[in-house]
Amino acid sequence: MTHAPGRQAIHDIAALINRIDICVLASRAEDGQLHARPMSNNGEADWDGQSWFFAPSNGRLVAELRANPEAVTTYRAETGYTFVTISGRTTLETDPSLKRRLWLDELERWFPNGPEDPNVTLIRLDAEAAQWWTEDGDGSADLREVAATS
Amino acid sequence: MTHAPGRQAIHDIAALINRIDICVLASRAEDGQLHARPMSNNGEADWDGQSWFFAPSNGRLVAELRANPEAVTTYRAETGYTFVTISGRTTLETDPSLKRRLWLDELERWFPNGPEDPNVTLIRLDAEAAQWWTEDGDGSADLREVAATS
Repeated sequence: MTHAPGRQAIHDIAALINRIDICVLASRAEDGQLHARPMSNNGEADWDGQSWFFAPSNGRLVAELRANPEAVTTYRAETGYTFVTISGRTTLETDPSLKRRLWLDELERWFPNGPEDPNVTLIRLDAEAAQWWTEDGDGSADLREVAATS
Repeated sequence: MTHAPGRQAIHDIAALINRIDICVLASRAEDGQLHARPMSNNGEADWDGQSWFFAPSNGRLVAELRANPEAVTTYRAETGYTFVTISGRTTLETDPSLKRRLWLDELERWFPNGPEDPNVTLIRLDAEAAQWWTEDGDGSADLREVAATS
């Protein structure tokens, strides 16, 4: 088990997740039950400690994060043994210019009205901790300092 | 989106997860942060609404579940688009005869002292809700009634 310093860990984690299209995001309901669902990783080719997800503003995920902003995402590679989990705090972004900047055309499959639609919420996840398990070894990193200074 | 009745859902979910060796289990730390880690699904060939996992008694997962018994497991098939999430409440089992009954030889890789070791805790997850996303469609099920009567 490696405990990588934050900056190096960001680089290592980006290399592990940048080809994984879909991750699973878990959040906590008000009754305490944990829920998880697959989410597009929004083309995170250059992950820098922040992850971005689009979700319906009136859906269960946004309601859960509004009440409990902590979340964890899990990435499993499609081939080989690679798992990455990233824990952190989410912020719900509704700024239309930010939504436009991070929009990908493929999102129109789920949100036909595009990023301007008020029923589209952008979720920002600021990583606080990460762990990974691969054929080449396991590791963990505390990312709170990196997140705070980025 | 199908809302399957509980008994049928148990059968459908078992068929989706019975060839997925490793799932990811998410739990909640006392500081509110959510954590997740890959776990062997313990040979769940005939899933009946209860899932079983072995973990170190003195590890973070057991400490988190002791404080917050809610958990969610996610299964991603190794090929094709299949995701299953199962939410529920966990119970920590230390009964040696139950641990022996559910023990699999492959667990000795992680727990060389076998099921009798007090540092081996058996986690039981009683499913309360499940969701699935597949190429053939999505679905969800409320499993609380099934769990209560099984």
